[in-house]
Amino acid sequence: MNFNYTNPTMIQFGEGKISTISTLIPAGQRVLFLYGGGSIKKNGVYDQVVAALSGHQWFEFSGVEANPTVETLNKAVDLLKGEGLVYILAVGGGSVIDGAKYIAAAACYDGDGWDFLEGKCQVLKALPIGAVLTLPATGSESNPNAVITKAATKDKLDFGSKLVQPRFAVMDPTVMKTLPQRQLMNGIVDAWVHICEQYVTYPVKAMVQDAFAEGLLRTLKQLAETRDNQDDTWRENLMWAANQALNGLISAGVPSDWATHVLGHELTALYGVDHARSLSIVQPWLFRHEIEKKRAKLEQMGRNVFALDVGDDLAERTIDAIEAFYQSLEMETQLSDYGTDKATAVDALMAQLKAHGRDNLGEHQSIDEAGMRSIFELAVA
Amino acid sequence: MNFNYTNPTMIQFGEGKISTISTLIPAGQRVLFLYGGGSIKKNGVYDQVVAALSGHQWFEFSGVEANPTVETLNKAVDLLKGEGLVYILAVGGGSVIDGAKYIAAAACYDGDGWDFLEGKCQVLKALPIGAVLTLPATGSESNPNAVITKAATKDKLDFGSKLVQPRFAVMDPTVMKTLPQRQLMNGIVDAWVHICEQYVTYPVKAMVQDAFAEGLLRTLKQLAETRDNQDDTWRENLMWAANQALNGLISAGVPSDWATHVLGHELTALYGVDHARSLSIVQPWLFRHEIEKKRAKLEQMGRNVFALDVGDDLAERTIDAIEAFYQSLEMETQLSDYGTDKATAVDALMAQLKAHGRDNLGEHQSIDEAGMRSIFELAVA
Repeated sequence: MNFNYTNPTMIQFGEGKISTISTLIPAGQRVLFLYGGGSIKKNGVYDQVVAALSGHQWFEFSGVEANPTVETLNKAVDLLKGEGLVYILAVGGGSVIDGAKYIAAAACYDGDGWDFLEGKCQVLKALPIGAVLTLPATGSESNPNAVITKAATKDKLDFGSKLVQPRFAVMDPTVMKTLPQRQLMNGIVDAWVHICEQYVTYPVKAMVQDAFAEGLLRTLKQLAETRDNQDDTWRENLMWAANQALNGLISAGVPSDWATHVLGHELTALYGVDHARSLSIVQPWLFRHEIEKKRAKLEQMGRNVFALDVGDDLAERTIDAIEAFYQSLEMETQLSDYGTDKATAVDALMAQLKAHGRDNLGEHQSIDEAGMRSIFELAVA
Repeated sequence: MNFNYTNPTMIQFGEGKISTISTLIPAGQRVLFLYGGGSIKKNGVYDQVVAALSGHQWFEFSGVEANPTVETLNKAVDLLKGEGLVYILAVGGGSVIDGAKYIAAAACYDGDGWDFLEGKCQVLKALPIGAVLTLPATGSESNPNAVITKAATKDKLDFGSKLVQPRFAVMDPTVMKTLPQRQLMNGIVDAWVHICEQYVTYPVKAMVQDAFAEGLLRTLKQLAETRDNQDDTWRENLMWAANQALNGLISAGVPSDWATHVLGHELTALYGVDHARSLSIVQPWLFRHEIEKKRAKLEQMGRNVFALDVGDDLAERTIDAIEAFYQSLEMETQLSDYGTDKATAVDALMAQLKAHGRDNLGEHQSIDEAGMRSIFELAVA
């Protein structure tokens, strides 16, 4: 076991914590207030943020999409530069916070910000970011990663840098009261798959990491059974579980996979599938394709998360249980549920992967082109 | 659930990581190299640290005791001030790291450093600390707390400040190969009780915190069964579990107790009982005394940590299981095992508590003087 780990994001968790922004953002900083489609104006979050920003100079930029695009974000960069803004306050879910990370890096870079996504250069400098989380799902509020889309070419890629990790994250679970069920279920599945990407890999006897991952999975499973976002503890537990699912803790010192995400991103980019649903479509089929490599950990998950009986087909039954879990949340588990053209979808998806240079995926880097095609053929059917 | 949480300590985990000190301590800083009784000279850690410090000006101070005393630490403060040292590198277990925290604060304070322990003033400034952990137990390497003893008056008190939390913590599990079994077992029990102090309290439906705490307890229980510090994964898991047991994570948003520690400290101060053993002596009796207040969580612990069958006396059986666990590690569970004078011990311990102003303990602040006496009478018998 060999790793470096730190998580410097200051978490402010609890009702009313939005007001702490006023002191968390240093005095005298000119602020870009970034948000999405306007739901924060309906649920009171916008007003709370404005009140907290009363001691600061700030400018707002709204309209960050569910899968944030460079086309939109570059407009925010222009506003930021034009007004001389030096601090970004992202108010929203993972998309807005991911968008803020792009803006923070692009604002300090002379070239095209998309270079970070294509891996042409590393982030060397970035503006500070603060986050107010309104939708628990991605963990972006306290991690260094972002996924950004280029609408023109339907590219959905990721980048990461400690420099763009939020300085603080305000997590007030009361803001979840007005979220639609579809978004809450998406959030549960997104967090669930994040955990799986860091847990359903080859075993390295990391007892703490495994125990934490299994505890988070059991928590999400239990929360999915009640789905009551009017209950205080339900909201609190979901918000904290989704955060812990992807903040570097459970991946410290253990292998990570992320193939489900890479394949899923292409479903979103080409067919507009919700991020979480792209994962529920890909993952069961990817697990079936990779079952021999993942058998030991799938068996462990079957025992410790689903309380399944031991047996030769335990790994197979664990995958079935995962699939049934997704279906119980009304998540699609086949791309055909989206009405795509089966005849052309696989070729189109493979062309995207090729364009993005995705030639070997998974914790063993062993899912090659033929493997990706097989997984897509299963998922599309 | 309402809390603030961050843990900025940079963890460097794995074999060979001591060499990273060379860059973790900023260039040009004059360093105080603080350590304990000299075991680091036998196991090679001293040489590794000296090699890593080759680019820095440094002065060493050795002889920090198992329960670090202000008498000793104040000498280190004098050395530090005399030589104009500005960075403290603590190499050892919790005692050395706790000692470094005292030195870091006392060096920046005009008055008597003991004022921090007596709560007469808060830490407003402190020198930076780096830690190289040689004994997993206290979690001090990435938390803000320290326990310090005044030998002259047999006072053992604690203080805490984010300002004295180590900037980095090097955790190389290979250094544990030469640790004696007694210290390893002490470490397991110390970490175990830390978790209990944050978990065996009244339930607040904090699913993630409970799952993490239970996962850590099961991990420690399993490690205690094999006790093989020649095994790589055994050492890695113990070192990481003890760290996660007390870094603020599992206590975020939930009640904490710490009464076992407060009572145990007096056993150490008066009778020289090893810290971990003071806890194994006090805790079962404290739990029996407080069983009605802690019944729900003890039952949960019985089910999820010891896999006990449900039943009316589950809480009682859980306490018995904890006591049997300590005894299986050759830990004492009565003060009389130490050959103390039963007739005078309780009065002496109560006088200490009174002198330290300890009038209400526990997560409900409901263990009063009579309660403390009852617990001591049970533990001393």
